[in-house]
Amino acid sequence: MRASLGRRAVTRANVVARGGGRPGRVHVPSDAFQGRSPEIAARDALGRLFTAVAARAVIAEESEAAIAGGMKPEESERYEVLKKYVEENPIRDGNAWMAALMERDDVASRMVALRVLELRKTYAEEVFDFERVREQVISEVRSENDRLMSEYVKRLM
Amino acid sequence: MRASLGRRAVTRANVVARGGGRPGRVHVPSDAFQGRSPEIAARDALGRLFTAVAARAVIAEESEAAIAGGMKPEESERYEVLKKYVEENPIRDGNAWMAALMERDDVASRMVALRVLELRKTYAEEVFDFERVREQVISEVRSENDRLMSEYVKRLM
Repeated sequence: MRASLGRRAVTRANVVARGGGRPGRVHVPSDAFQGRSPEIAARDALGRLFTAVAARAVIAEESEAAIAGGMKPEESERYEVLKKYVEENPIRDGNAWMAALMERDDVASRMVALRVLELRKTYAEEVFDFERVREQVISEVRSENDRLMSEYVKRLM
Repeated sequence: MRASLGRRAVTRANVVARGGGRPGRVHVPSDAFQGRSPEIAARDALGRLFTAVAARAVIAEESEAAIAGGMKPEESERYEVLKKYVEENPIRDGNAWMAALMERDDVASRMVALRVLELRKTYAEEVFDFERVREQVISEVRSENDRLMSEYVKRLM
């Protein structure tokens, strides 16, 4: 599965964007990012992001649950356990990060881990707005390119 | 422009994903990522990625151009200048990275900078396959969640 996704992404990355000459051609070495294509690098970065989003959402939930139960958030074991885990373990690989939390012995860690697992799936499938991000990143690249070019031309004058 | 994108992303991030009770609700603190929403964090990460992709594509182009001209790539000033800049300056902010390259005094740096600028726009607009990345990240989260859950259940038995 992973190999076939990788192969398709490489084919796509090697595409000739505009017909004809050099100006619009974009040839990306297929292993440019530690052996990964740009699409796979983006997939991994978003996977990390979704895991971090889900963890922060569960911390917010546990804080609200504590307050609803008449406690301070810091008095909730789940809140404290997850907050500490997030602070002490930066997410490099979202799945390794999840696995380590799920393997811990205390019940509170395992309960929050299961909720983070559930939320990151919901977040990826239903909440994160891929289309808006596509629009935003293209609009950002255009406006930043225009700004950089205008500063460049100003310096030449 | 930036402020209004930020505001819309926050509204989206606060959406209730499934109606009703706790299971499907995803409430993401709007400033979860150094004051940014997840969509803005994703936009910035993709902006960095596109800048890196464009730089690597220009290095490949300059290498090919050198070979086509009967030289070794290392004999091309543009190839050497950009390769060294990429190696010595990890991209944290894609625009600051581009600006520093465009401000350099030597003609080779400025020429490759202009080409990187052009290519990252083409790459964002025409080459990068957002839809495939969306499919891949959702499929990856699903299969990794299934795997983590199955390992968790095995440990309980």
